[in-house]
Amino acid sequence: MGAFENVKDDERLAPDVYHQGPDTLQISRSKLHQKIRAKVLQRMKEKLGDELGVILLQGGGPFHIHSTDMEGCFRQEGYFHYIGHSILFMPRLPPEHAVWMGPIAGTEAVRQKYAVDAVHYVDEMAKVLKQLEAPALHLLCGINSDSGRPALEASFEGIDSFSVEREALFPIMADCRAVKTPEEIEVMRYANQVASSAHVEVMRKCRPGLMEYALEAVFLKDCYLLGGCRHAPYTPICASGPNGAVLHYGHAAAANNRQIQDKDMMLMDMGCEYYAYDSDITCSFPANGRFTDNQRGVYESVLAAHQAVLEAMRPGVKWPDMHLLAERALLGGLKAAGFVRGDVGEMLDKRLGAVFMPHGLGHLLGIDTHDVGGYLAGLPPRSTLPGLRSLRTARVLEAGMVITVEPGCYFNEFTMRPALQDPALAHLLVSERIEALMGTGGVRLEDDVVVTPDGCESLTNVPRAVAEVEAVMAGGEWPDTALSEQMSA
Amino acid sequence: MGAFENVKDDERLAPDVYHQGPDTLQISRSKLHQKIRAKVLQRMKEKLGDELGVILLQGGGPFHIHSTDMEGCFRQEGYFHYIGHSILFMPRLPPEHAVWMGPIAGTEAVRQKYAVDAVHYVDEMAKVLKQLEAPALHLLCGINSDSGRPALEASFEGIDSFSVEREALFPIMADCRAVKTPEEIEVMRYANQVASSAHVEVMRKCRPGLMEYALEAVFLKDCYLLGGCRHAPYTPICASGPNGAVLHYGHAAAANNRQIQDKDMMLMDMGCEYYAYDSDITCSFPANGRFTDNQRGVYESVLAAHQAVLEAMRPGVKWPDMHLLAERALLGGLKAAGFVRGDVGEMLDKRLGAVFMPHGLGHLLGIDTHDVGGYLAGLPPRSTLPGLRSLRTARVLEAGMVITVEPGCYFNEFTMRPALQDPALAHLLVSERIEALMGTGGVRLEDDVVVTPDGCESLTNVPRAVAEVEAVMAGGEWPDTALSEQMSA
Repeated sequence: MGAFENVKDDERLAPDVYHQGPDTLQISRSKLHQKIRAKVLQRMKEKLGDELGVILLQGGGPFHIHSTDMEGCFRQEGYFHYIGHSILFMPRLPPEHAVWMGPIAGTEAVRQKYAVDAVHYVDEMAKVLKQLEAPALHLLCGINSDSGRPALEASFEGIDSFSVEREALFPIMADCRAVKTPEEIEVMRYANQVASSAHVEVMRKCRPGLMEYALEAVFLKDCYLLGGCRHAPYTPICASGPNGAVLHYGHAAAANNRQIQDKDMMLMDMGCEYYAYDSDITCSFPANGRFTDNQRGVYESVLAAHQAVLEAMRPGVKWPDMHLLAERALLGGLKAAGFVRGDVGEMLDKRLGAVFMPHGLGHLLGIDTHDVGGYLAGLPPRSTLPGLRSLRTARVLEAGMVITVEPGCYFNEFTMRPALQDPALAHLLVSERIEALMGTGGVRLEDDVVVTPDGCESLTNVPRAVAEVEAVMAGGEWPDTALSEQMSA
Repeated sequence: MGAFENVKDDERLAPDVYHQGPDTLQISRSKLHQKIRAKVLQRMKEKLGDELGVILLQGGGPFHIHSTDMEGCFRQEGYFHYIGHSILFMPRLPPEHAVWMGPIAGTEAVRQKYAVDAVHYVDEMAKVLKQLEAPALHLLCGINSDSGRPALEASFEGIDSFSVEREALFPIMADCRAVKTPEEIEVMRYANQVASSAHVEVMRKCRPGLMEYALEAVFLKDCYLLGGCRHAPYTPICASGPNGAVLHYGHAAAANNRQIQDKDMMLMDMGCEYYAYDSDITCSFPANGRFTDNQRGVYESVLAAHQAVLEAMRPGVKWPDMHLLAERALLGGLKAAGFVRGDVGEMLDKRLGAVFMPHGLGHLLGIDTHDVGGYLAGLPPRSTLPGLRSLRTARVLEAGMVITVEPGCYFNEFTMRPALQDPALAHLLVSERIEALMGTGGVRLEDDVVVTPDGCESLTNVPRAVAEVEAVMAGGEWPDTALSEQMSA
């Protein structure tokens, strides 16, 4: 257990260090959040000059399950977590809180823990903010472009007596969040190590006869037990056979509850969360460990798209162009494997790529799985074309962006049947080969990729080549992350 | 895998059967919900006679994480789940739903799956309900006595043209939910088998040096992998040492993230959920597998309270009397072990029990962990006395009620320090013995108990006697449930 052995109540660590025990990543809150705050402040100063006042953010509240007293485990609101809060207002808790929830930390202990400049109680907000004599309170006000839901706007008793400003903050903070600092990337690298390692374990454990959710259980256990990652940032997608074609499979009405069959292709889209930062990884592999010819043909077409994008990504590249590049490589692979025929350029023009891959190539990743800043005023707008319109951003890549690269290929009745019957498309499809794959699901290969000054680097470390996948599933070694097992559970 | 082997897409099971694959409980929705519906209808008829109209319930909606598009995994609203719905109104989904969420079931398939009489689309509600020519729509309107939050009231476009009634339904449904049918008890028995088995595994895996959350990870994995139980009904409490005295430890600000020390007492309060029904079990044991004398003294006092209540529970007994019985046995045990001295009757009168056990003895359990129907008009009201006022119900027990029995004993500065300094209590406390235990946490032993016509039966099956706990932790056998391992993960 190295440096952690017999750590008693963190006595040897600085009070602002977040960690989850032996072999988990130690994060200095001061180091992480100070740089982020400086970034946001600089941008606000550039925009507002002398008009710059106080940035006021609302922390998250509880999630009740309907009318009950059951609460989901609290998750901090993303923008609030991002800033790490410089003056933090905390609730004044009643003394009996100590019996039910634990010892009540005083303001000084909270100040040290979160590495902020000052801590006061919520009931002191009006008084403390008045003393700052700021020209305005800048509130977070804007619409999340993935959910259509408004950001959490701060409020407090007495806010009416302040001058508030709602325009400046949201676009600046959303844009800052889209480009990560090195410290943020370090956290995401760790979340990727943990999830990559758990995906490899899932590959090794998979076999026909299991329920799909058994693999979800194994994945979540490994991420938590070995990596200290308590939450899955999104509901895991553990799809076997036909379910692989359902892009958001795994939700309550399609709850990873099919029994895995011998010839199934598996599609596992699962990630984990550490200190609020997410990983989001997809692996596809044959349930029984050996690719059939058809499975290999589809898989290698997707892999070609995956590799083409990773080779082309760099600052200055437009994300929709990467989507089109992926489509081109995918369709080229499918043509070589005999599933489509004719001119790939014609296929692209006719948006045939969206028949095989109806979703976008990837999305910004960070504190949110579909991270903010994808579409903002002044940035490239959303396309209206099939496939491209599903992209969650159309931005030009910048160094420090973390974005998923997740080309896929699916055989879904809903998209494929109309294409087979469309005179404009039918001549491009080898219908007997495609019919043979209808109902067999799909393949998706998803890495989390950081844009570097001269290219990109994948944070994900899972078997990708057919030979690698088959070897690992047969029990072969996989160059592991630094994670060591706490226990053989 | 028995009868389930190679089940392909449930083809051999009736369409209304809920199950999670091999070795998991099969539930006939028609059998379960028809009896429940009949019970509620009968009570509504008795109350309203000719005024009886149509019962209208609102199903649950999604839980968004703040402004993001991340949703928690959907959980049906409890009252809605309870009825199993007889005319179900479902959303009319757009065709592209099939690509993202899965095949769209038609109304007839949904009717068969949920074993209801009819299914229509939500946009047909006004039309369909008009045709019923009911004197009124009975809406669910009332306050959850644990959360203080209002029940989810149904609404739809056009409801203004109906006569609605809001008084009758809530107290009747809440009361019906408090007394379980045999079919409901069967589901809860299964959820108890699964969680009991997982608790035993946690005991076996526990050792000093682990992080507390490692045991949470093991528990959740076993419940899901071996029992098909996807959700924990509440945030698991995995408390070591001093954290055992924090009654709701495990939440985000006290996140099961302490490293377990050699002499720690462990307190594990964890349950699982199957087909919306919960188990809620607490085990306490020494981290290193061997009780110290002090640990044994406290543990056996709590166990005496646990046993006294299980021996006394039967229909007609008042729940607050069981709380007082538990306090009496607890204090008697603590006296025999030398932690308190003097007259136990005096201790009870002075509410010394609430110093050691500040929470209630137990709560109704069912679809909600703190199940509904605890306090309703015409039923015994909440006490104002320490300890007793924390009870979530003061009802007279009836056969079919499922209630937790969870006496505990904690050494918490917040409750103990004032007692040691209180002249009215100090002479009853053996201060040097208690001081030795301050900061060592606590013990809680929680079973889920069904009231039978002539007594009660615990659905929980975990080691309780000191010798049993030590034997199981040393690797000894424990008479297991019928669960078999899907895989050795």
